[in-house]
Parts: sequence; structure tokens; C-alpha cells
Amino acid sequence: MTDTIIDPSVVEADNARRVDDLHADYDSLGERLDRRGISIDAIKAKVAGFNIAVPSWGVGTGGTRFARFPGLGEPRDIFDKIEDCAVISQLTQATKTVSLHIPWDKADPNRLKQAASRFGLGFDAMNSNTFSDAKGQLQSYKFGSLSSADAATRQQAIEHNLECIEIGKTIGSKALTVWIGDGSNFPGQVNFARQFEHYLNSMKAVYAALPDDWRIYTEHKMYEPAFYSTVVQDWGTNYIIAKELGDKAMCLVDLGHHAPNVNIEMIVSRLAQFGKLGGFHFNDSKYGDDDLDAGAIDPYRLFLVFNELVDIEGRDADFHPAHMLDQSHNVTDPIESLMLSASDVQRAYAQALLVDRKELEAAQQGNDALAATQALRLAYRTDVEPILALARLENGGAIDPLATYRAAGYRARVAEIRPAVEGGSGGIV
Amino acid sequence: MTDTIIDPSVVEADNARRVDDLHADYDSLGERLDRRGISIDAIKAKVAGFNIAVPSWGVGTGGTRFARFPGLGEPRDIFDKIEDCAVISQLTQATKTVSLHIPWDKADPNRLKQAASRFGLGFDAMNSNTFSDAKGQLQSYKFGSLSSADAATRQQAIEHNLECIEIGKTIGSKALTVWIGDGSNFPGQVNFARQFEHYLNSMKAVYAALPDDWRIYTEHKMYEPAFYSTVVQDWGTNYIIAKELGDKAMCLVDLGHHAPNVNIEMIVSRLAQFGKLGGFHFNDSKYGDDDLDAGAIDPYRLFLVFNELVDIEGRDADFHPAHMLDQSHNVTDPIESLMLSASDVQRAYAQALLVDRKELEAAQQGNDALAATQALRLAYRTDVEPILALARLENGGAIDPLATYRAAGYRARVAEIRPAVEGGSGGIV
Amino acid sequence: MTDTIIDPSVVEADNARRVDDLHADYDSLGERLDRRGISIDAIKAKVAGFNIAVPSWGVGTGGTRFARFPGLGEPRDIFDKIEDCAVISQLTQATKTVSLHIPWDKADPNRLKQAASRFGLGFDAMNSNTFSDAKGQLQSYKFGSLSSADAATRQQAIEHNLECIEIGKTIGSKALTVWIGDGSNFPGQVNFARQFEHYLNSMKAVYAALPDDWRIYTEHKMYEPAFYSTVVQDWGTNYIIAKELGDKAMCLVDLGHHAPNVNIEMIVSRLAQFGKLGGFHFNDSKYGDDDLDAGAIDPYRLFLVFNELVDIEGRDADFHPAHMLDQSHNVTDPIESLMLSASDVQRAYAQALLVDRKELEAAQQGNDALAATQALRLAYRTDVEPILALARLENGGAIDPLATYRAAGYRARVAEIRPAVEGGSGGIV
Amino acid sequence: MTDTIIDPSVVEADNARRVDDLHADYDSLGERLDRRGISIDAIKAKVAGFNIAVPSWGVGTGGTRFARFPGLGEPRDIFDKIEDCAVISQLTQATKTVSLHIPWDKADPNRLKQAASRFGLGFDAMNSNTFSDAKGQLQSYKFGSLSSADAATRQQAIEHNLECIEIGKTIGSKALTVWIGDGSNFPGQVNFARQFEHYLNSMKAVYAALPDDWRIYTEHKMYEPAFYSTVVQDWGTNYIIAKELGDKAMCLVDLGHHAPNVNIEMIVSRLAQFGKLGGFHFNDSKYGDDDLDAGAIDPYRLFLVFNELVDIEGRDADFHPAHMLDQSHNVTDPIESLMLSASDVQRAYAQALLVDRKELEAAQQGNDALAATQALRLAYRTDVEPILALARLENGGAIDPLATYRAAGYRARVAEIRPAVEGGSGGIV
Repeated sequence: MTDTIIDPSVVEADNARRVDDLHADYDSLGERLDRRGISIDAIKAKVAGFNIAVPSWGVGTGGTRFARFPGLGEPRDIFDKIEDCAVISQLTQATKTVSLHIPWDKADPNRLKQAASRFGLGFDAMNSNTFSDAKGQLQSYKFGSLSSADAATRQQAIEHNLECIEIGKTIGSKALTVWIGDGSNFPGQVNFARQFEHYLNSMKAVYAALPDDWRIYTEHKMYEPAFYSTVVQDWGTNYIIAKELGDKAMCLVDLGHHAPNVNIEMIVSRLAQFGKLGGFHFNDSKYGDDDLDAGAIDPYRLFLVFNELVDIEGRDADFHPAHMLDQSHNVTDPIESLMLSASDVQRAYAQALLVDRKELEAAQQGNDALAATQALRLAYRTDVEPILALARLENGGAIDPLATYRAAGYRARVAEIRPAVEGGSGGIV
Repeated sequence: MTDTIIDPSVVEADNARRVDDLHADYDSLGERLDRRGISIDAIKAKVAGFNIAVPSWGVGTGGTRFARFPGLGEPRDIFDKIEDCAVISQLTQATKTVSLHIPWDKADPNRLKQAASRFGLGFDAMNSNTFSDAKGQLQSYKFGSLSSADAATRQQAIEHNLECIEIGKTIGSKALTVWIGDGSNFPGQVNFARQFEHYLNSMKAVYAALPDDWRIYTEHKMYEPAFYSTVVQDWGTNYIIAKELGDKAMCLVDLGHHAPNVNIEMIVSRLAQFGKLGGFHFNDSKYGDDDLDAGAIDPYRLFLVFNELVDIEGRDADFHPAHMLDQSHNVTDPIESLMLSASDVQRAYAQALLVDRKELEAAQQGNDALAATQALRLAYRTDVEPILALARLENGGAIDPLATYRAAGYRARVAEIRPAVEGGSGGIV
Repeated sequence: MTDTIIDPSVVEADNARRVDDLHADYDSLGERLDRRGISIDAIKAKVAGFNIAVPSWGVGTGGTRFARFPGLGEPRDIFDKIEDCAVISQLTQATKTVSLHIPWDKADPNRLKQAASRFGLGFDAMNSNTFSDAKGQLQSYKFGSLSSADAATRQQAIEHNLECIEIGKTIGSKALTVWIGDGSNFPGQVNFARQFEHYLNSMKAVYAALPDDWRIYTEHKMYEPAFYSTVVQDWGTNYIIAKELGDKAMCLVDLGHHAPNVNIEMIVSRLAQFGKLGGFHFNDSKYGDDDLDAGAIDPYRLFLVFNELVDIEGRDADFHPAHMLDQSHNVTDPIESLMLSASDVQRAYAQALLVDRKELEAAQQGNDALAATQALRLAYRTDVEPILALARLENGGAIDPLATYRAAGYRARVAEIRPAVEGGSGGIV
Repeated sequence: MTDTIIDPSVVEADNARRVDDLHADYDSLGERLDRRGISIDAIKAKVAGFNIAVPSWGVGTGGTRFARFPGLGEPRDIFDKIEDCAVISQLTQATKTVSLHIPWDKADPNRLKQAASRFGLGFDAMNSNTFSDAKGQLQSYKFGSLSSADAATRQQAIEHNLECIEIGKTIGSKALTVWIGDGSNFPGQVNFARQFEHYLNSMKAVYAALPDDWRIYTEHKMYEPAFYSTVVQDWGTNYIIAKELGDKAMCLVDLGHHAPNVNIEMIVSRLAQFGKLGGFHFNDSKYGDDDLDAGAIDPYRLFLVFNELVDIEGRDADFHPAHMLDQSHNVTDPIESLMLSASDVQRAYAQALLVDRKELEAAQQGNDALAATQALRLAYRTDVEPILALARLENGGAIDPLATYRAAGYRARVAEIRPAVEGGSGGIV
């Protein structure tokens, strides 16, 4: 049996106050969808089966290069983080896996497995870190890691990734995610072609050690921490990497890693069409890699991404992208943000499932641009909260995760146990 | 013998007034370069061998969707345009080829050949046009051409491209450039994957008819005339196209067709590294596809592009990218803009040739970012105008093409022959 | 009594098929809102009183600098345009005013008044045009109009604006909107300070002729048709203009005229806070001034703008911004786009009215960022279509304007009367 | 007499090896300028009188939110920093002042004064810090400082600024620079109008305490550390602030704080035209607030800014903007970057002084866009390094500051004294 962190009676009490309205809303929505030829229960079943991973580092308060302002009850280590993840999973029933970051989360793999399984949690992709120097590390990543001009530094970075795979094998992960900050800050600092050659050779060495049933995910990003060029700067480069490495290599799309104005849903389509869409790091952004909560800034864009995903599902039954939240929670309780973000990702999925794809295709074929876009808008306008809430309830979660979480007083409780953390300047000085 | 449009005595008179200063400046620059271990004559020889194509449509005054304000002496047809191109070539000695746009430049191919050869001009890549409807055309391109949902429309667009190849064969062109405006204005208007599949199939039909010694160039563009999605939206898609089509297919880079902030020189490097850099449409831009004069807004960016090209030349002796100017001259005399732009492209090339590549590589290998970027800056800061001017003079051109052109009174002269054109609203209403 | 263009029996027939479902949906939404302490009828009343102007030029098919692809039944003149506007008004009951563009819509003012009043339409702001040359115009606006370096050109532009005021007085308009394309395409082409001084002096001359009960609206735009600098480039310059001119001068905000990533709703707030928010040109955009249908790309942004407007309404009872649609319909039937856009603007307004402002303010005061943003999201997620539809129905319009319009066969009918228009290249060549 | 940190004999030795070539280059440039009617000595005199402040925090290695990779010999405190600044000043003779950041640089003011004056250094503007929490601080700035919803937090931020003024008075500063990170990360988190009202009221309290011969500089920034809205987000808001506060309030322009594509030189012109241009924080950027070395990415933009400044100088003899470098040196030796950046700012100034303003104005008045932009390009293309170098030499500095600095072995020397600093993650975790 799975342990729970939030007292089930608190969950039940809050649910009880809401369940009647929920059923009324669900039924009335069901009738409206029925008119459109859609079975609400079928949608609910799909939503109920949806999972999105939570990153271990996401449950701590994030910061900027200017400052970090920690909150109360910051997790002290990976075991505290797993407990925070368990809260999110318990209330939302949508986040059954945790993604680790090495070396931040380094610990005895067996203890990790035990700690997670106690709460019914599994492990998603392993994340390596060669964008900052760990204590005692021999070579510095100041001027690059997998693509460094220095062979010893590249070798160290390769070995770190191999270690991540080893840890992952023990705890049951099936994927390695590689995101690096390598690039340059000045025109001329690096030779683009040579740097990318180094990168590809290093990645081939990592790929060679990848178990057959694993995937390796590479993630592109336009800029930051490198401010003139980045070695994996866009989906074009990311696609070439996945092609060069082989069938187990796939591309990750982070919604905040693109140039201004870029049509992200189109990148999603292209990668899928050519067999290289591995999955997502969900978050939202207005300017750069702002790492805001998924759907907080442009919820329609999130819907349009899921519109592609549902379209791909329809053509390829074997399509199973890896979904993870990847956000920096600077001004909210990270648990609250992650619960609502998981829900907002589900919302986009549910709305995309409502699109009448026959009608859409007919409008597309007939060049009826207005009818086509209205088919999307009609689905998007639908308030699917009753579907999400009932799916949560039936899976054992909370109708209103935020209200239940606040009622449970979890943050105050851990703040008594976990020592206060001091804030201060970020990386800038 | 080659005909000249500008009276040679005018050229000689202006040159005579400048030649002494030019020699003095060239010698003094030569001494400074000599200190850096560079032979100025070797640089001059490379500059003298540099050619960039002029697009036939570039010699007319451009416009925006809001308005077009024609200038004096607008060319009436392709034969007037060829004369204007001949002026540019005569004075700059850098633009020996003209690139045609069909159907705008449709005429008896033999007359075209004769008209051009009279001035020593050849023909560069053929450009097809399926982004606007020609008079009497059966199917409209309103909703797309090569990627249209409609098979008859796609077929018509394919045949138009085949016709361009046929014309090109007759006049001695060796390449077809395909840029289309296909895309969509609304989320849902098109299915991205299906539209791209249509595009690839159409392009395969065109490719099949391409002579063995030809190249086909595809050009990506982020947006405009389509404002939500564009089928060939970025270099990632462009690269996939070139891979799908085959060895004769290469990617064109237009400097104004990218998302804001994108590192264009890095795209140049990536395409070259994977064998798919076909060439350039040069211009400059501050906001979108502004089509301003090359080097007018960010001359250092132009230099950084050429820094890549010289680097590639050093690794691949068979590297021969196709260079063309592609600008819209809305407020200047197009001939003046094209002459100075050709010169500014040469300038960037000359400056890139001055980079001490051994020093640069040593700085890169040693992570000396400052020394590396200074190696570029030192080359870029060098005023290479004496090199460009002497190369022009020795090739039979003008030391100062702008001054000579103005002295010759060409624009006033053609304004007497060619009828005034009325301006008015652009496409918007 | 007001004439109608669409046969009322067609409207009634379509409404009859939908009215029962509408009432059911309205009631069920009313119950849900009631739980949140909101009276659905009060919201409906506000929506019913909402008006947005339709621009006369919006009912024609737009184009880009590359091409224009006209549709069927393009309006031949302002009288056809008024009929098209009457259709939009009849079915949506949200667009009671038309905004004219001079000289495009020049006609006998009395005939204009009569034509509009027949359909119960009034006239919104007058729009002057000094961004393209009209036939027979003495001075060209190629190098600027109100800010031209040439005094005679500035004078001509001033007089054109005075003429617009005169026409407006006769037909009952109460405002002049001035948008110009003046700027430059090259660094150095203009002296920024001198150009702006010319602009201000010209505008002061126009302002001096403005009747006391009129407003003058100035509109900023980052770029296009000028591609290096634009004289009224952003809200900062726009604000200075309005301050320099006087109390009758106010700033217009067009949603597509900003730099990438800019927070538009914040500009709305700043202009209102300092008394200079005049109103809006609504549309949507992904890249530049794409002029897509309002809410088509980022509906949440449109909501956030209305969230500000409702907030301002709450503080200032005298706040009456001027709303107009300003879109370019390149691939849709303009009437369809305008009907749905009017509806989408109303939708954003209705959703913004649902925000619990007490709860929002409490969350803001308590730094509860999550609760604050959820207060907005809850309102935004609400599907308010039943409110909009019932407001339309009760005002005499159509429950589903698009379905009714298509059922009425209006476009086919006018296509028989109005001659086909040929497409072709846009301004570019 | 002024102390020097770098042994003068090292400077002299390097200068001696270069001085003959320098004189030859200066003379040959002088001849070329003479042909254009320009006195090279007059330009040199202006360059020699140019000063730019160095920020105390700039001499330490910067970082990002992902990591910080310290270099050797990082300054331990403000006294080490002053020594590093003295090196820069000694070799470049262009950076006579240091700008302090409180509380980072807090120390006995008399000791500060003594330490600086020993090297002939003065103090530029004081910088307050309310964007991170200092140790022991009562109220947190997590949710804002001068614009916080909480009155006690605002009061604390005001008092911190007053303290900065007090310190500044003692050490001879004449200005306070206020940059804050206040804003929000979520739509709805703050009420824009109320937050700005709080900000203005707080600033008025600070302004009230400003000595009569001081200035207060406010600096806008589009985003970061706030990722949805920033209270002083652009020059429009910045201008309003300066107007609301009074004559001693002026706007600072940081070159990296703008939206993508924005025309910064035009903002410079507007602020100057309306009397509110206070000065600059120089750096360069490609994506966001990248804080790269001035002129490293787009040197022509830096020139265009100085083109405006020289234009303003010509109209207003009392124009004395405050210049400071504000860069983050993540991969270079900060002293090297600051020396070269100071030089690159001088370079832009020298090039702008070369513009033939009569010719430029004539071209502008005659709408000769090409000639106008060529007037700028001619000046920009001139390699003015000999002017800068001779000005340095004659002032007692180094002909080649970088070579001299490296020859002097300063970094290795301080690395022996100053303890190594450990790197690690930035603010993100």
C-alpha cells in the first residue's frame, strides 16, 4: 500500500464539500459535449491516464542571477524533495514520476528507490549536469563540457553522463536527458564547426553506453548561460544530433528555449513527422527562458502544442512522448505551482481531445481557414475543469488540489522541521 | 568586345582625380598589413575575383503593402533591367551575373541571352514565382502553391518550376531558386505535416527534372506573406528538404528571414558542416524581412558571416556558394544601392580574409576568449576601401562608383526615355 | 425603422434552431456564476451595451507586399462597404459605427450619412492617409508627410488632415485618427530630433483646427513601412505627443504595433494612469503588424488587456475608450472575420467582467501570486459564449452570426452584382 | 603624486616597442582625415578628455543563474576592487572614476576616499541595491522594494537609498542611480497602476533628500529578474518618472535593457530632446540583458548611439551625460574586458566626431538617403585606433593596454595574494 503525506481525511473533507457541484458541472458539460458528438467519459479516461514527471529540483524555490529568495520549509535533500513530490502526486494523481538531477540528487540508489516507491513514485529521465562545477571536480566547465576544446574536460563530462546512466539503471529510469550550457560569449571565442564536432563525438561515446531499452534526450536552447552562441541552439541542430546518434536519440522541446515569435507547435510537428520528437519540458515564458508556470502566460500556445500531440497520436499509436514540468518557482510555493501546472498541462490535453478532427480536416481541405480555426477555438473555449477534477477524484486525489493543500497546512509543518535558508545574491556577484 | 553604358571617358575622368590618393592609401595600408604578415596584393586578388549576382527585380523601386513610390526612369521591362544591371557591373566590376524572375522577366530566351552578353553579363539562378497569381493563371495560389491542399494547384506550381528550368537551360543558367510564401494565417488553417508532405512531393517532381549540372536552392523564411505559419520556416526545415531531395539540393540563407536575435553565422556554419550551404541572398534588416541594403544596419554581422565563409573555404577548396543581392530599394536609386551593397559585401569578404586564423585558432584552443574576439575585431576595424577601389580600377571599373554614376547623369537620361510610373497603395487595399 | 440586408426570416430560422440550447446553456452558466457571487444578467447587460467600430477598409480583402488575392464580391466603393458593415452590425449587434479612411472613402458627405443611417449606422473616427500618394497629389509622401524635411509637403499633409476634420463634422464623427508611416530606412537618413520637431509642429496645426468636442488620436507603430526608424515608434513617443498637443489628444494602442515580447497590457495601464489612453485598434499578431483577427493568436493577451480596461472602469466612471477592429483579411471572407472578431473582443470583455476584483486585490496585497493569477484564470476559463449569444439575440441579432451569414448566401449574392477583381503583385514590384 | 600599480617601466617598455609605428599610423591617418577637412589633433583632444566610470562590481567575475566560474585573484573587497580599477585607469587613462554599489561596497567612507585618491580615482554615481536581500535585513524584497505592496518594505527601501546618498556625500559622489528589479512573474500578481504609484511615492521621498547639486538616475529594463512585468519597463515609464520627480531626475539608458529590435539610438534622441537623458550603462547584448563587452556584438549600434550624442553636443553645450560600463565578465579577465570596453566606447565617440555634419544635414534636407547613410559609414569605417592610442600615450597610459597588462603579470600576482574562490551553481538552485 502507498503511503500518503497529506492526511486522507483532509482530502476527503475538502472533496466532500465540492463533490455535488462537481457532479452537476460534469453532467451539464457532458450534455453540451454530447451535442457535439463527444463522450465526456472517454475524455475523462484519457485524462486519468495522463502522467507528467516532476523534476526533483522543481520543489525548491528558484532564483535569478540577481538574487534568490528562499521560501519556508525548503527541502534539505533529495529525500525531502521526494516527499514534496509525493504531495503533488497524491493530490493531483497526475505526477507519478520524479526526474533526478545528478550530482544534486546523488544518494544511495537503493535508498532513493525505497523512498520513492513508498509513495508509489517511479523515476523518470536522469538529468546530467555539466553546466556548473561540482565541488572537487578536476576540470572546470567554465569554457564548455561535452564540446570543450580540452580533451580531458570532454572526457570528464562523458564520464559524468555514464555515471548518470549507471545510477538510472539501478533506480529504474529508462532515459538520460542531456542539456548543456556550452557555447560562447564572444564572436570568435569558439569555432562553431569544431565545437559541434567535439560535441557529437562526446555524445557518441555516451550513446554507446546507453542500454537498448533507454532513450537519450537532447534539449536545445537559444541562449543562456552562453550569450553569443550555444552549441545546441535550436531544433535544427537538435534534429541533426538525433540523426547522427541513432534510433534511441530523440529531441526534447522546452517551451521557453526558442527565439522570439517562433511557432513552437510547428517545430513539434516537424520533429514528430521525422521521427525525432522525444518529449517536452513544460513551462511558460514571455521574454526568454523565464521558466514560469505552464500555461501562465499563453495558454492557447500550450493548447496548440497539444493539438499537434493529439494529431500525432491519431496517426501513430506508438507515440509516447516524455512529459516533464521544468519551471523555476521564484515567488510561489513550488508545490502549489507544480500542482496547478500539472493540471494546466492536462487541461490543454483535454481541450485538444475535444477538437472535431473530421470537421477540422474538411475545413483544411476546403481552404476554409475560418472554420478550421473555429474548430480549434470551440474546443479551447470549453471549460474542462469538471473533467480534470472528476478524473482526480476517481483516482484518489483532490477535487481542488490547491484548496486541499492549503487546508492541510503542509508548508507550515515542514517549515518547523526544515531549517530556514538564507537568501542573497544569485550568480551575478 | 563588351559594350558599356556609361561613357568610359566619364569613368576615366573621375578615376583620374582619385588615383593618386588611392595609391597612397593602398600603399600605406599595405605597410600596416605587412606588419601583420599579410600581403595586400593577395587580398586584392581575391577581392578582384569575387562576383555577386544582381536580381533583375532589384533595379526597380520596391514598395511595401502600404504604398509604392516609384522613382524616375523605372525600367519598363527585362531589357531595361539588363541595361541597369550593366551599369552596376561596369562601375563595380563585381556583378557579372543577373538573376531572373519568371514570369516577370519572361521574353524570348535568345533575345535575353543576346542582350546580356552584349554587356558581358551572364545569368545566375532562375527564380520561380508561385507567391502571386499571374494574369490568366488557372489555379490561384491564394491558399498555397507547391504545398496546396489542392492537387491541380500543386501540379500547376510544379509545371511553372519546370518551365523556369527550361528557360534557364536556354540562357545558360545552372540553378533554380525556389522560394514560396505558402503557410497559413490561422491556427488550424493547415495541417503542418500534411502540408509539408505535399511540399516535399511537389519538390521531388521538380527535382526529377533538374539537369545533372544544376543545383536547386530552397530558401527559408520565418513569416510574411503568411503570418501564422510558413511551410519552409527556418533552416531546420530547409535542411530536411535538401536532405530529402538529394545532392543537387542546397539551402539558401537570406539574412532577413530569421527570428529576432538568431545567430545567423552559426546557421551558416551548421549548413556548411553538413554539406548543405548553397549560398546567400544578401540584404540587411532591423525588424523583419526589411530588405535593406547589405551592411546598412549591422555591418559586423555581415563580416561574421564572411568570417565563416572564409573559414569554410580554408577547409573545403570546392566550396562555391552562390551570392546574390536581394534588396528592396524604396527610398534610394536602386542602381546606387546595388553598387554600394555589392561593395559592402566585398568589404566584408576582404575584412574576413584579414583574420589571422592561426592566432584565432590558438586563442580558441586556449580558451582566450578576449584574444579570439580581438583577432576578429582587428581585421574588421581595418578600412579596406583602398583594396576594393584598386581591385575595381584594375578590373576596368570606377574607384568611386557612386560619384562616377552621379557624374554620368544616367538616371536623368533614362528618365527622359522611360515613362513616369504612378505610385499608389501597395497590396493592402 | 432600420433597413436590414440579411432577410430577417433567415436570421429567425437559424435562431429558432438554437434558442432552446442557448437558454439551457445560459441557465446552467448562470448557476455556476451564481456560486461565485456573479449575476449573469448584469454581465449580459454590459456586453449588450458594448460597441466596436468597423473600419470601412476592413471589408475588402487585404494583401501583402508580395501579392493580393481578392475574394468574390469585393466592395466597389464606400457605399458597398457600408452595406457590408450593415450586415456585420445586423448579425452581431456589436458594431454600430463605421470608421472612414480619406481619400479612399471620399464621397458626398450627405450621401454617406444617408447611406449609413438607413442601416442604423453612425460614423466613428476619421482616418487620414498620408502614407501613400493619392492620384494627382502635388507633393509626394515618399520621404515623409507631417514630418517631412520639406515645408510644402508638411503643409499639404496638414491640409489633408484639416479636410478630414471637415468631412467628419458633416457626417457626425467626433474624432480624427492620425497614423503616419514617416520614418527612415537608413541610419542617418533623417535627424531624429528635427524630424520629430516637424511632426509636432504639423500636429499642432491640425490640433488647432480640432472642434472642442472632438478628440485626436495618434497611433504608434514600431516599424513598417519605415524599416530603420519610425517617427511615432512607441508609446513613449506617443505619450509625449499627446502631452504636447493638449487635452483633446489621446493615444491609440494597436495590438500589433509593438516590439517582440512587449507587455501590452502594461502600456494600457500606464497610458490610462496618466490620462492619455484614447482607445484601441484591435487585431492579433504573431510576428509583426500581422493584422490577424483579434484573439486568433493569443486570446489570453486580449483578455489581459480587457482586465486592465475593466480595472480602469472601476476607478474612472468617465473612461470611454474608442474601440475599433483594424485587421487585414487575406484568406477569409472579411465579413466573417469581422463578425467573429467583434465577438471575440466582446468575449474578452465579458471574461474580464467575471474577475473577482476583491479577491484579486486581497491576493495582490498579500503577495499571493498564485491566488492572484488564478483569479484571472478562473474568469478567463469561463465559456461566456451563452452570454454573448443571448445578448445578440435580445438585441435582434443572430445567435450564431457565422452560420446565419452562410445560410443567407450574402457573399454569393453580391458576387453576382459586384465585378470580379483581378489579383496580382503587391507593392513590392 | 598618483600611485601606480603597474610598474611604469613595464608600461614604458611596451610603449617603446610600439611608438614609432604609432606615430607613422597617426600621421598617415592624419593626412587622410586632412583630405576630408578634419584635424586629427582636435579629435585626439576630445578623446583625451573623455571619461567613463568603472563599476566596482565589474572587476569581479560575473555569473548566470546556472553557475558562476570565478577566475584567479578575485578581489576580496572594495579595496581590492579599487586597486583593480586603478590598473584599468592607469593603462587606459579613460576611467578616472569608480561607481560603488551599496551594501556590497560598504566600508568606512574616509578609507574609501583615501584608497581611491591614492590612485587619482574619484567616485561616480552611488548605486543602491534593493533587488536582493542583505544579511540581517528586516523586510524581504522578494515581492518588491520601492514599489512593494507593503509599506514597511517600501520604507526600508527608501531608507537604504537615503543611506546611499549619505555615503555618497562623504566620498564626493554627485549622483544616485536607482535600478530595481520590482515587477511580477504572473498576470494579476500586481496591480500595475497601484504598484507604479507606490514606486513614484517612494522615489519622491528619496528625491526630497537629494542634495541640490546631485542628480538621481533611474534605469529602465524590460525584464529580469521579473518575468511577466517590470515596474520601470521601458523609456516611456522612465521618462514619466523623471518628469514626475523634477529637474534633478534623469533617465539612464542601458544598452541591453530593451525589447528585441528596438531602435536604441532613437530613444537616446527622444530623451535628450525632452531634457531627460542622464547617461548610459554601456555593454552589448545579442539576446537579453547579456551584459557582454561594449561593442562586442554590434559595434555599429554603439557608433550610432554616439552619433546622437555628438549631435546633441553640437546643439547643447551643457550636455554632460554620465557614462559607465556595466558588464558581466563571465569568461574573460574582468580587467582586460573593462580596458578594451573603455577603449571601444572611446572608439565610437571618435568615429562619431568624424561625421561631416554639414554634409549629413544637406543630405537629410535633400532626402538623399544614400548620401546621408554613407556620411555615417565613411566615419565609422575609419580605423581610429591611432588616435585612441596616442591620446592614451600622451596622458601617461599604454599604447596597447592589453599587451602591457599581460606583460605586467598583474593577474598572476594578485592570484598569489587573494585566495581562490569556489564556483558553483548560481541563483537557480
